[in-house]
Amino acid sequence: MGARDGRVIGIDPGSRTTGWGVVERAGGRIVRVASGVIRTRPDDPMPTRLQAIHLGLAEAIRTYLPTAAAMEEIFAHKSAASALVLGQARGVALLAVAGLPLGTYNAVTVKNTVAGSGRAEKEQVARMVCTLLGLELSVPLDETDALAIALTHLSHGAMVPTAPVKRPRRMSARDQWTAIALRAGVKT
Amino acid sequence: MGARDGRVIGIDPGSRTTGWGVVERAGGRIVRVASGVIRTRPDDPMPTRLQAIHLGLAEAIRTYLPTAAAMEEIFAHKSAASALVLGQARGVALLAVAGLPLGTYNAVTVKNTVAGSGRAEKEQVARMVCTLLGLELSVPLDETDALAIALTHLSHGAMVPTAPVKRPRRMSARDQWTAIALRAGVKT
Repeated sequence: MGARDGRVIGIDPGSRTTGWGVVERAGGRIVRVASGVIRTRPDDPMPTRLQAIHLGLAEAIRTYLPTAAAMEEIFAHKSAASALVLGQARGVALLAVAGLPLGTYNAVTVKNTVAGSGRAEKEQVARMVCTLLGLELSVPLDETDALAIALTHLSHGAMVPTAPVKRPRRMSARDQWTAIALRAGVKT
Repeated sequence: MGARDGRVIGIDPGSRTTGWGVVERAGGRIVRVASGVIRTRPDDPMPTRLQAIHLGLAEAIRTYLPTAAAMEEIFAHKSAASALVLGQARGVALLAVAGLPLGTYNAVTVKNTVAGSGRAEKEQVARMVCTLLGLELSVPLDETDALAIALTHLSHGAMVPTAPVKRPRRMSARDQWTAIALRAGVKT
């Protein structure tokens, strides 16, 4: 078990804010290579905003050369109108990663992998990502979400089924780290 | 009244089939410059399919150099899941036209403009587009839909409100043509 892909870009697309984060296994550890947030201007026309998202992601990919990409699965959104707007951002994000192997994971799997519980709160996932990767807690949620998806891919690999793993609801950051690292085939 | 924009690309995006059509005013007439359909392979991963749509539209734009773009407005879709998939195709289409002035029109306005009734059937719109532009009736619906949107933009212009125009339910192709041409500022 474990991932084939060495360096993963995780993306959390949105028409206002798109988070991205690149992680990799290096020297027996999982490290953050780079991450960021692309903010679009609400006053700009949608094509301009989508272009900003696409260019931002293309730039990150050109700079950090990930070997795989990961995004959240399509999920049942509450409103069709907002799903269409989200879809537009997701479309240009998918376009940006065309050519890279793509892993998609549902929210429960991401939470389970990173925070040890499929019902973890967004903030809990964020704290765990920051602790695991040695980031300040002030990192925006869209950025930690993107890093969480990248960590999930590194942990599960593209080929491993994404069934939730039973674990105690609360794990220490160290235990969680060990769990991710083990699954990613990294010695701790 | 009338459009400012000389050459318009209309786009009808979809994850399976994306129609596009370029029309312009030339020598006192409205003519089709070019049109086509981009079909994606259902077996390909979504990023590859979105790339095909984006590349196809970028190629059409590079080749036929439209000065404006037109698409249908976002509409209330029946299912959020299919709205998200449609949104992805719409996103890469919007990306392709970034930099061009964009007009969006609702389906009623398009039907009203092209077929003289906001309740016209899809096939009726298609027949009218083919008659107006001198096309064979075998042209795919996605292509005639895209041409209908382009004609609507040429007729309404980007600045003209898109309130439905009251007209008799059935108009001859010639009367309809005259109506479109008049609105587009072309002498018939």
